[in-house]
Amino acid sequence: MIRFNCDYAEGAHESILKLMMETNMEQTPGYGEDHYSEQAREMIRELCKSPEAEVQFLVGGTQTNLTVISAALRPHQCVIAADSGHINVHETGAIEACGHKVFAIPTKNGKLTAKQIWDTWEDHAVNESYEHMVQPKMVYISNPTEIGTIYSRQELEEISKTCRECGMYLFMDGARLGYALTSQENDLDLEMIAQCCDVFYIGGTKVGALFGEAVVITNDTLKEDFRYIMKQKGAMLAKGRVLGIQFIGLLKNDLYFQLGDHANRMAMKLKKAFQDAGCEFLVDSPTNQQFPILSDEVLKKLGENYSYSYQKRIDEGHSAVRFCTSWATREEDVDQLIEDLKNI
Amino acid sequence: MIRFNCDYAEGAHESILKLMMETNMEQTPGYGEDHYSEQAREMIRELCKSPEAEVQFLVGGTQTNLTVISAALRPHQCVIAADSGHINVHETGAIEACGHKVFAIPTKNGKLTAKQIWDTWEDHAVNESYEHMVQPKMVYISNPTEIGTIYSRQELEEISKTCRECGMYLFMDGARLGYALTSQENDLDLEMIAQCCDVFYIGGTKVGALFGEAVVITNDTLKEDFRYIMKQKGAMLAKGRVLGIQFIGLLKNDLYFQLGDHANRMAMKLKKAFQDAGCEFLVDSPTNQQFPILSDEVLKKLGENYSYSYQKRIDEGHSAVRFCTSWATREEDVDQLIEDLKNI
Amino acid sequence: MIRFNCDYAEGAHESILKLMMETNMEQTPGYGEDHYSEQAREMIRELCKSPEAEVQFLVGGTQTNLTVISAALRPHQCVIAADSGHINVHETGAIEACGHKVFAIPTKNGKLTAKQIWDTWEDHAVNESYEHMVQPKMVYISNPTEIGTIYSRQELEEISKTCRECGMYLFMDGARLGYALTSQENDLDLEMIAQCCDVFYIGGTKVGALFGEAVVITNDTLKEDFRYIMKQKGAMLAKGRVLGIQFIGLLKNDLYFQLGDHANRMAMKLKKAFQDAGCEFLVDSPTNQQFPILSDEVLKKLGENYSYSYQKRIDEGHSAVRFCTSWATREEDVDQLIEDLKNI
Amino acid sequence: MIRFNCDYAEGAHESILKLMMETNMEQTPGYGEDHYSEQAREMIRELCKSPEAEVQFLVGGTQTNLTVISAALRPHQCVIAADSGHINVHETGAIEACGHKVFAIPTKNGKLTAKQIWDTWEDHAVNESYEHMVQPKMVYISNPTEIGTIYSRQELEEISKTCRECGMYLFMDGARLGYALTSQENDLDLEMIAQCCDVFYIGGTKVGALFGEAVVITNDTLKEDFRYIMKQKGAMLAKGRVLGIQFIGLLKNDLYFQLGDHANRMAMKLKKAFQDAGCEFLVDSPTNQQFPILSDEVLKKLGENYSYSYQKRIDEGHSAVRFCTSWATREEDVDQLIEDLKNI
Repeated sequence: MIRFNCDYAEGAHESILKLMMETNMEQTPGYGEDHYSEQAREMIRELCKSPEAEVQFLVGGTQTNLTVISAALRPHQCVIAADSGHINVHETGAIEACGHKVFAIPTKNGKLTAKQIWDTWEDHAVNESYEHMVQPKMVYISNPTEIGTIYSRQELEEISKTCRECGMYLFMDGARLGYALTSQENDLDLEMIAQCCDVFYIGGTKVGALFGEAVVITNDTLKEDFRYIMKQKGAMLAKGRVLGIQFIGLLKNDLYFQLGDHANRMAMKLKKAFQDAGCEFLVDSPTNQQFPILSDEVLKKLGENYSYSYQKRIDEGHSAVRFCTSWATREEDVDQLIEDLKNI
Repeated sequence: MIRFNCDYAEGAHESILKLMMETNMEQTPGYGEDHYSEQAREMIRELCKSPEAEVQFLVGGTQTNLTVISAALRPHQCVIAADSGHINVHETGAIEACGHKVFAIPTKNGKLTAKQIWDTWEDHAVNESYEHMVQPKMVYISNPTEIGTIYSRQELEEISKTCRECGMYLFMDGARLGYALTSQENDLDLEMIAQCCDVFYIGGTKVGALFGEAVVITNDTLKEDFRYIMKQKGAMLAKGRVLGIQFIGLLKNDLYFQLGDHANRMAMKLKKAFQDAGCEFLVDSPTNQQFPILSDEVLKKLGENYSYSYQKRIDEGHSAVRFCTSWATREEDVDQLIEDLKNI
Repeated sequence: MIRFNCDYAEGAHESILKLMMETNMEQTPGYGEDHYSEQAREMIRELCKSPEAEVQFLVGGTQTNLTVISAALRPHQCVIAADSGHINVHETGAIEACGHKVFAIPTKNGKLTAKQIWDTWEDHAVNESYEHMVQPKMVYISNPTEIGTIYSRQELEEISKTCRECGMYLFMDGARLGYALTSQENDLDLEMIAQCCDVFYIGGTKVGALFGEAVVITNDTLKEDFRYIMKQKGAMLAKGRVLGIQFIGLLKNDLYFQLGDHANRMAMKLKKAFQDAGCEFLVDSPTNQQFPILSDEVLKKLGENYSYSYQKRIDEGHSAVRFCTSWATREEDVDQLIEDLKNI
Repeated sequence: MIRFNCDYAEGAHESILKLMMETNMEQTPGYGEDHYSEQAREMIRELCKSPEAEVQFLVGGTQTNLTVISAALRPHQCVIAADSGHINVHETGAIEACGHKVFAIPTKNGKLTAKQIWDTWEDHAVNESYEHMVQPKMVYISNPTEIGTIYSRQELEEISKTCRECGMYLFMDGARLGYALTSQENDLDLEMIAQCCDVFYIGGTKVGALFGEAVVITNDTLKEDFRYIMKQKGAMLAKGRVLGIQFIGLLKNDLYFQLGDHANRMAMKLKKAFQDAGCEFLVDSPTNQQFPILSDEVLKKLGENYSYSYQKRIDEGHSAVRFCTSWATREEDVDQLIEDLKNI
């Protein structure tokens, strides 16, 4: 059984484990106050061309989302998200458990538009009985989205402009950011993201690390006491250096981007194979997650040797499923899958 | 200016104030442990034919909703509601502030169906990655709904059956229950409601009291320590007898139902007048809230002498608005409005 | 049975009920946006000589405490209180349910000192591992305290100065403020309190109203979106005018202070009688709550005709109990109690 | 600079890193549903002789504490802890942020007694105004405590008995459990702990793992939906196998106990050296944390080559500090410290 069901089936890139081995018995301060974490922070600030940014390392995506949002909002404020957004559907109410409504907006391709954001804000801020409604104060987007689509530079700039006009923070979930930034259709880079967003993160868990998300905060208001909130949410790793070391490994020699590029190339091979086989897709994704629509029969056959994740019933007899590639995907496995697909 | 914008523009029915006057200097224990509250509880248990029900008096609707829901759910559980439900749109995130997601379902007429509830439950309970999603544990309905519609006996029984099959609590917001139970289209009564729901409330604030909601809990699990949660949420009135006394006044000699009936008759007069004038309605409401769709011009004219509340833009030139009658609406004011309407 | 167990055993001062009667059928906007509430606000601003203060009316003490504290603090921040403070012991964890630690400090007489506040702040702000501890951001005091003692002008000014040096808000719970300000030992007034505190409230429930607490916010930061938090906590009364009207009644012709003075006079009579009988007291209280230490035998005898509330076991055979007078206490009842005391 | 300031200054035991290396490229399901995690669970169930126990792996201590407590309590319930308990002082209000009061009880040696627990429960459950106070429902103890002391079998059994009589859960924080179970004074084992507690954890972070805490739940009520709460709190590691693998490494061939034993031996050497030097101690600790009271002068000297953590001012000129040994402490470093101590 070869796993294409997710992008976290393996451990970490070998070079990262090596770095952990080499530094293992060194004594350092805890809680991210060690020199490795500091070095990783500096590397990230340089990549983002944001010398003043605060960089903190957390363990996983849900944890990062709830920590950032809890740190940013007052009790009556809500965060706007696509209805397919991770915080809205796949975090067991983590944001609500911190006291905040996720105001979900329907989208076709997982992406919010500047107009949707503006309209939502206007609905809440202008209505006469506004005190009876939550107050939108943050916009959450993911790049790539949960269904693989990515934001263009123009889209992000428009969203950012709208947020600033409305006095709302812009927060980008970058759990798979490496796969967005190395997509052939991408025209964004870390510098632009740092300029457009008030806070975002560079995901490690799904792009070559054992675990770890690097939060980059550019808005001064959001920096204040952020580490208190981390600690309170159980998001401050005792041996913080393990996070710093992993990000050093990922960012040294552009490994992070090479890993992203590899996954995307594998995904494009798969995409082409599905297209050649006449498949429709749930959505046109330029990144490592592909959502072909397949017949029950084909799915059953493929399921004998490959795992995928189930997405959605499309019609009597067909479903959309997800095939993920990752930094660890072996090209021979992709080739074998393509070969098997041809034979079905 | 005559107010039709809401059903809480006046104080309380005169007989209630009198009762408060008469009992004013009597010394009683606090926090609802007085004999008036006990008497009111007994009256409600009899009306509901539920001798074992726990009855508690709270001050207002948002407070009651958040107290009941907070008492019922564990942290990972959510409450299902119509997307127009009061808890979803007009309580400033009160439920989320207690840690719980409101899982909102789109409806046309403000009412949930048994099928929608079943499908939602199935989506969350059967999906393979269920632990990553909130767990539905309570269904919130309002009767009448926020747009005036009411549940039939059959609808309520089907919903109740579905909830019990799924292991979910059924909670009815009865902020305007008096207007539902006295609607010409109604075929429900308090006994049936007590049998179908695990918890519901009889609203006083909008039906003749100064304030006050009587919560009726029939499910034993929900009774446990309910008063602790009341106290914690600031929902236990020090001079609790003021609530007990008001409900005695409301329930004595069927006053509550007479007041509801009056408001509905006034609303039906208004409805007919709008119909006669060729108006469309946002929804066909058989209770005290009417939602005619009127032209900007007509609205402007009416607005000179009558207040209404704005609901929704329908098209270029027309909007739906809300006209409310209440226990206190004077028939001469309704007649005047109808007269003025004819002249426009 | 004559009740001395609390100061909320009766309804409201007659003049307040009259005012409610007279205005009962007038139509007004809801949620405290009516002209009565506005008039009451203006009266309070004048009494406090704080023309810029925001004044909001809430229903009860626990509700007010949780609303103010929830509005003021970020998630990692705590409120400092005396360990006997109402929020620490008698609100069923209301503050914690809003996410915040009550940092309780032991006191002998229910009052915090500026030094205790400073030391607590220093412990948290200077310690090397400060991010691992809550951050003190608000100080909660009650005046009178839960055991009847009051703050002097000098004490309050020192506390206020310390809070400002530490960047903490000062919040005074004034549930019984009328009894503090009319105590013979008092040297404070509303103007000084408004200057020293960032937020405080003038309690109505225990001083002549049916219910109601008038929150006065002088710190601009705390004003922001306060009404959103009120609504979210279920603390925005639909018929808000009922609160406004009551405070007009209380503040007109100094009624509030006359009622306070009456209760204190009755309490001093009682105090003297207990002193004359050779009683010790749990604490020397100059206000309407008196805490004599009595033998089991005396308590049993007194308990036949008078209710009091149990406070604390002192030794084998003796307990401290609480006798409360109030705006409604009848002098003949006090005289009778004194008489009976003499005969025991 | 040699670090004795904490027991998490190094990475992980070499054998654990090796196991991670060897299994690195294997594909497994996520979220702890892999075969390594299952194998580790089985090893723990056997060690605890609790075949029905639910075992879940979390990342760190604060996270584990807040997840367990949030899963166990209803909103009005509190957890009882020693005032020096980690949840009370060093988790930035994590428990309160989940809505619950930590009811802190003063202790001399960091340990709660059965009597203290009973008395606290009685104060809350019997008092007439009990609904106005939080309801104790869980007792939190740590073993060893934050100041190194350990519970005897008899103490634990008495506490357990009391908790069961009062209907309260017993929860043991075992962040340093390895150091308790291998102390010379210890007479407990995992089986007894599993029998006495409703839930406890075996700490990895401080005893040889990179990170990881193994929660063992023996009470069926607490098992229900525990994984939902984990996910909600951001405590479900995507690559869960990394936790399973570490615990396999720790528990294979008794490594966990060997590491504990090593740290304790090193601590006893240090303790003896301080004793020989005539030192007093803050507390008599039989585990890896030692709290000698030293003069400012000695501290300054020692501080040139060794890091320790500051605990508490004792008097003018003396402070208690903490010296920690750990699984990774090198005997030559201890010997050097002892040597240097002699020379001061």
